[in-house]
Amino acid sequence: MSINSDWIRGFTDGEGCFYVGLNKNKTMIMQIQVLPEFAIAQHSRDVKVLYQIKDFFNCGIVKKNNKEVMCYSVRNLKHLNTIIIPFFEKNELLTSKKFNFIKFRWIVKCMLERKYHLNELGLKKIIAIKKRMNTQKIKK
Amino acid sequence: MSINSDWIRGFTDGEGCFYVGLNKNKTMIMQIQVLPEFAIAQHSRDVKVLYQIKDFFNCGIVKKNNKEVMCYSVRNLKHLNTIIIPFFEKNELLTSKKFNFIKFRWIVKCMLERKYHLNELGLKKIIAIKKRMNTQKIKK
Repeated sequence: MSINSDWIRGFTDGEGCFYVGLNKNKTMIMQIQVLPEFAIAQHSRDVKVLYQIKDFFNCGIVKKNNKEVMCYSVRNLKHLNTIIIPFFEKNELLTSKKFNFIKFRWIVKCMLERKYHLNELGLKKIIAIKKRMNTQKIKK
Repeated sequence: MSINSDWIRGFTDGEGCFYVGLNKNKTMIMQIQVLPEFAIAQHSRDVKVLYQIKDFFNCGIVKKNNKEVMCYSVRNLKHLNTIIIPFFEKNELLTSKKFNFIKFRWIVKCMLERKYHLNELGLKKIIAIKKRMNTQKIKK
Protein backbone atom coordinates (compact mmCIF):
# COMPACT_ATOMS: atom_id res chain seq x y z
CA MET A 1 0.00 0.00 0.00
CA SER A 2 1.48 3.30 -1.01
CA ILE A 3 1.20 7.03 -0.62
CA ASN A 4 -1.59 8.86 -2.45
CA SER A 5 -3.37 12.22 -2.42
CA ASP A 6 -5.87 11.37 0.31
CA TRP A 7 -3.19 9.86 2.55
CA ILE A 8 -1.17 13.09 2.21
CA ARG A 9 -4.29 15.15 2.89
CA GLY A 10 -4.91 13.15 6.10
CA PHE A 11 -1.26 13.15 7.14
CA THR A 12 -1.05 16.92 6.60
CA ASP A 13 -4.22 17.44 8.64
CA GLY A 14 -2.34 15.62 11.39
CA GLU A 15 1.29 16.63 11.03
CA GLY A 16 1.57 19.32 8.37
CA CYS A 17 2.36 22.95 9.00
CA PHE A 18 1.84 26.07 6.89
CA TYR A 19 4.20 28.49 8.48
CA VAL A 20 5.35 32.01 7.66
CA GLY A 21 8.65 33.00 9.22
CA LEU A 22 9.63 36.65 9.65
CA ASN A 23 13.37 37.01 10.06
CA LYS A 24 15.38 40.18 10.58
CA ASN A 25 17.68 40.51 7.59
CA LYS A 26 19.54 43.75 6.97
CA THR A 27 20.21 42.85 3.36
CA MET A 28 16.48 42.96 2.52
CA ILE A 29 14.81 46.20 1.38
CA MET A 30 12.45 46.20 4.36
CA GLN A 31 15.07 44.53 6.62
CA ILE A 32 12.63 41.70 7.19
CA GLN A 33 12.68 38.48 5.25
CA VAL A 34 9.32 36.76 4.79
CA LEU A 35 9.77 32.98 4.63
CA PRO A 36 6.68 30.91 3.87
CA GLU A 37 7.25 27.21 4.42
CA PHE A 38 5.21 24.05 4.09
CA ALA A 39 6.68 21.50 6.46
CA ILE A 40 6.04 18.07 7.90
CA ALA A 41 8.20 16.92 10.79
CA GLN A 42 8.61 13.34 11.95
CA HIS A 43 10.72 11.34 14.34
CA SER A 44 13.83 10.15 12.47
CA ARG A 45 12.55 6.56 12.66
CA ASP A 46 9.94 7.60 10.08
CA VAL A 47 12.17 9.56 7.73
CA LYS A 48 11.26 7.13 4.93
CA VAL A 49 7.74 8.53 4.76
CA LEU A 50 9.14 12.06 4.37
CA TYR A 51 11.14 10.94 1.34
CA GLN A 52 7.99 9.33 -0.07
CA ILE A 53 6.21 12.70 0.30
CA LYS A 54 9.18 14.47 -1.35
CA ASP A 55 8.99 12.02 -4.26
CA PHE A 56 5.22 12.51 -4.50
CA PHE A 57 5.49 16.30 -4.80
CA ASN A 58 8.80 16.18 -6.67
CA CYS A 59 9.99 19.27 -4.81
CA GLY A 60 11.28 20.29 -1.39
CA ILE A 61 13.98 18.79 0.79
CA VAL A 62 14.24 16.44 3.76
CA LYS A 63 16.42 17.99 6.46
CA LYS A 64 17.45 17.36 10.03
CA ASN A 65 15.69 19.50 12.65
CA ASN A 66 17.56 18.03 15.58
CA LYS A 67 18.99 14.70 16.73
CA GLU A 68 15.69 12.85 16.59
CA VAL A 69 13.58 14.93 14.24
CA MET A 70 13.59 15.10 10.47
CA CYS A 71 11.53 17.51 8.42
CA TYR A 72 10.16 17.65 4.88
CA SER A 73 10.28 21.30 3.86
CA VAL A 74 9.22 23.37 0.84
CA ARG A 75 10.33 27.01 0.88
CA ASN A 76 10.79 27.70 -2.82
CA LEU A 77 8.02 30.20 -3.69
CA LYS A 78 7.58 28.84 -7.21
CA HIS A 79 7.16 25.29 -5.93
CA LEU A 80 4.77 26.46 -3.21
CA ASN A 81 2.73 28.33 -5.82
CA THR A 82 2.68 25.74 -8.58
CA ILE A 83 2.77 22.43 -6.66
CA ILE A 84 1.85 22.65 -2.96
CA ILE A 85 -0.91 25.27 -3.13
CA PRO A 86 -2.74 23.72 -6.12
CA PHE A 87 -2.54 20.31 -4.40
CA PHE A 88 -4.30 21.55 -1.24
CA GLU A 89 -6.80 23.53 -3.31
CA LYS A 90 -7.77 20.27 -4.99
CA ASN A 91 -7.36 18.08 -1.90
CA GLU A 92 -9.06 20.09 0.81
CA LEU A 93 -7.97 19.71 4.43
CA LEU A 94 -10.61 18.77 6.99
CA THR A 95 -9.16 20.34 10.14
CA SER A 96 -8.72 24.01 11.00
CA LYS A 97 -5.36 23.84 9.23
CA LYS A 98 -7.32 24.69 6.10
CA PHE A 99 -7.78 28.25 7.45
CA ASN A 100 -4.03 28.50 7.96
CA PHE A 101 -3.57 27.23 4.44
CA ILE A 102 -5.86 29.97 3.06
CA LYS A 103 -3.85 32.70 4.82
CA PHE A 104 -0.59 31.05 3.76
CA ARG A 105 -1.78 30.99 0.15
CA TRP A 106 -2.73 34.68 0.33
CA ILE A 107 0.77 35.58 1.56
CA VAL A 108 2.53 33.47 -1.10
CA LYS A 109 0.37 34.94 -3.90
CA CYS A 110 0.89 38.52 -2.66
CA MET A 111 4.64 37.98 -2.54
CA LEU A 112 4.77 36.56 -6.05
CA GLU A 113 2.21 38.71 -7.80
CA ARG A 114 2.40 42.01 -5.90
CA LYS A 115 5.80 41.91 -4.18
CA TYR A 116 4.08 42.83 -0.92
CA HIS A 117 7.15 41.75 1.06
CA LEU A 118 9.20 44.50 -0.61
CA ASN A 119 7.20 47.56 0.44
CA GLU A 120 6.08 48.86 3.81
CA LEU A 121 2.34 48.72 3.33
CA GLY A 122 2.47 45.22 1.82
CA LEU A 123 4.74 43.97 4.57
CA LYS A 124 2.37 45.34 7.21
CA LYS A 125 -0.48 43.45 5.56
CA ILE A 126 1.58 40.24 5.51
CA ILE A 127 2.47 40.64 9.20
CA ALA A 128 -1.19 41.28 10.08
CA ILE A 129 -2.28 38.10 8.28
CA LYS A 130 0.58 36.08 9.75
CA LYS A 131 -0.51 37.14 13.27
CA ARG A 132 -3.93 35.67 12.59
CA MET A 133 -2.45 32.30 11.65
CA ASN A 134 -2.17 29.67 14.36
CA THR A 135 0.94 30.12 16.38
CA GLN A 136 1.77 26.50 15.66
CA LYS A 137 5.44 25.75 15.29
CA ILE A 138 7.03 22.98 13.29
CA LYS A 139 6.80 20.45 16.02
CA LYS A 140 8.06 17.04 17.18
CA MET B 1 -14.44 17.10 0.27
CA SER B 2 -15.07 14.48 2.88
CA ILE B 3 -13.49 11.82 5.01
CA ASN B 4 -12.49 8.52 3.40
CA SER B 5 -10.32 5.47 4.12
CA ASP B 6 -7.06 6.96 2.82
CA TRP B 7 -7.56 10.22 4.70
CA ILE B 8 -8.10 8.22 7.91
CA ARG B 9 -5.02 6.12 7.14
CA GLY B 10 -2.95 9.30 6.72
CA PHE B 11 -4.48 11.06 9.73
CA THR B 12 -3.84 7.97 11.89
CA ASP B 13 -0.23 7.81 10.69
CA GLY B 14 0.00 11.37 11.98
CA GLU B 15 -2.22 11.51 15.05
CA GLY B 16 -3.47 8.01 15.84
CA CYS B 17 -2.40 5.92 18.77
CA PHE B 18 -2.64 2.19 19.44
CA TYR B 19 -2.22 2.04 23.18
CA VAL B 20 -2.44 -0.73 25.75
CA GLY B 21 -3.07 0.46 29.29
CA LEU B 22 -2.24 -1.72 32.29
CA ASN B 23 -4.18 -0.59 35.35
CA LYS B 24 -4.09 -2.04 38.83
CA ASN B 25 -7.57 -3.33 39.56
CA LYS B 26 -8.21 -5.54 42.57
CA THR B 27 -11.50 -6.79 41.17
CA MET B 28 -9.73 -8.51 38.26
CA ILE B 29 -8.52 -12.14 38.53
CA MET B 30 -4.88 -11.10 37.96
CA GLN B 31 -5.41 -7.71 39.70
CA ILE B 32 -4.33 -6.02 36.49
CA GLN B 33 -6.76 -4.74 33.92
CA VAL B 34 -5.53 -4.75 30.32
CA LEU B 35 -7.07 -1.88 28.38
CA PRO B 36 -6.32 -1.72 24.65
CA GLU B 37 -7.42 1.55 23.10
CA PHE B 38 -7.36 3.09 19.66
CA ALA B 39 -7.36 6.84 20.08
CA ILE B 40 -6.97 10.06 18.13
CA ALA B 41 -6.59 13.28 20.09
CA GLN B 42 -7.12 16.78 18.72
CA HIS B 43 -7.35 20.33 19.96
CA SER B 44 -10.98 21.08 20.78
CA ARG B 45 -11.16 23.48 17.83
CA ASP B 46 -11.07 20.37 15.60
CA VAL B 47 -13.55 18.21 17.50
CA LYS B 48 -15.74 18.12 14.37
CA VAL B 49 -13.23 15.88 12.60
CA LEU B 50 -13.30 13.43 15.53
CA TYR B 51 -17.07 13.11 15.18
CA GLN B 52 -16.60 12.51 11.44
CA ILE B 53 -14.20 9.66 12.29
CA LYS B 54 -16.68 8.29 14.84
CA ASP B 55 -19.41 8.36 12.18
CA PHE B 56 -17.09 6.69 9.68
CA PHE B 57 -16.31 3.77 11.99
CA ASN B 58 -19.75 3.77 13.60
CA CYS B 59 -18.21 2.91 16.97
CA GLY B 60 -16.24 4.56 19.75
CA ILE B 61 -16.82 7.79 21.64
CA VAL B 62 -15.57 11.37 21.56
CA LYS B 63 -14.50 12.46 25.03
CA LYS B 64 -12.77 15.36 26.72
CA ASN B 65 -9.13 14.74 27.69
CA ASN B 66 -8.63 18.14 29.26
CA LYS B 67 -9.73 21.76 28.77
CA GLU B 68 -8.35 22.04 25.25
CA VAL B 69 -8.07 18.46 24.07
CA MET B 70 -10.75 16.11 22.77
CA CYS B 71 -10.20 12.46 21.95
CA TYR B 72 -11.84 9.86 19.73
CA SER B 73 -11.53 6.57 21.58
CA VAL B 74 -12.42 2.93 20.92
CA ARG B 75 -11.95 0.57 23.87
CA ASN B 76 -14.68 -1.96 23.23
CA LEU B 77 -12.83 -5.21 22.40
CA LYS B 78 -15.50 -6.39 19.97
CA HIS B 79 -15.40 -3.10 18.06
CA LEU B 80 -11.59 -3.13 18.04
CA ASN B 81 -11.63 -6.68 16.70
CA THR B 82 -14.38 -6.38 14.13
CA ILE B 83 -14.08 -2.75 12.96
CA ILE B 84 -10.77 -1.03 13.80
CA ILE B 85 -8.36 -3.94 13.29
CA PRO B 86 -9.85 -5.10 9.95
CA PHE B 87 -9.78 -1.48 8.73
CA PHE B 88 -6.03 -1.10 9.37
CA GLU B 89 -5.36 -4.56 7.96
CA LYS B 90 -6.95 -3.41 4.73
CA ASN B 91 -5.65 0.16 4.89
CA GLU B 92 -2.05 -0.27 5.87
CA LEU B 93 -0.23 2.48 7.76
CA LEU B 94 2.97 3.88 6.26
CA THR B 95 4.81 5.00 9.40
CA SER B 96 6.29 2.89 12.18
CA LYS B 97 2.86 3.01 13.83
CA LYS B 98 2.08 -0.08 11.77
CA PHE B 99 4.44 -2.08 14.04
CA ASN B 100 2.55 -0.79 17.06
CA PHE B 101 -0.65 -1.79 15.34
CA ILE B 102 0.62 -5.35 14.79
CA LYS B 103 1.46 -5.75 18.50
CA PHE B 104 -1.82 -4.13 19.47
CA ARG B 105 -3.71 -6.57 17.24
CA TRP B 106 -1.84 -9.51 18.79
CA ILE B 107 -2.88 -8.39 22.28
CA VAL B 108 -6.54 -7.83 21.33
CA LYS B 109 -6.75 -11.24 19.59
CA CYS B 110 -5.08 -13.03 22.53
CA MET B 111 -7.49 -11.40 24.96
CA LEU B 112 -10.54 -12.35 22.92
CA GLU B 113 -9.54 -15.77 21.68
CA ARG B 114 -7.29 -17.08 24.46
CA LYS B 115 -8.19 -14.95 27.48
CA TYR B 116 -4.48 -14.26 28.00
CA HIS B 117 -5.31 -11.35 30.30
CA LEU B 118 -6.95 -13.74 32.76
CA ASN B 119 -4.02 -16.05 33.51
CA GLU B 120 -0.50 -15.39 34.75
CA LEU B 121 1.45 -16.72 31.78
CA GLY B 122 -0.78 -14.95 29.26
CA LEU B 123 -0.62 -11.69 31.18
CA LYS B 124 3.19 -11.89 31.28
CA LYS B 125 3.21 -12.32 27.50
CA ILE B 126 0.91 -9.31 27.07
CA ILE B 127 3.12 -7.18 29.34
CA ALA B 128 6.23 -8.25 27.40
CA ILE B 129 4.66 -7.28 24.08
CA LYS B 130 3.29 -4.02 25.50
CA LYS B 131 6.82 -3.09 26.66
CA ARG B 132 8.03 -3.44 23.07
CA MET B 133 5.39 -1.01 21.83
CA ASN B 134 6.37 2.65 21.49
CA THR B 135 5.97 4.47 24.73
CA GLN B 136 3.85 7.03 22.90
CA LYS B 137 1.08 8.55 24.94
CA ILE B 138 -2.21 9.94 23.73
CA LYS B 139 -0.88 13.39 23.02
CA LYS B 140 -1.85 17.02 22.36
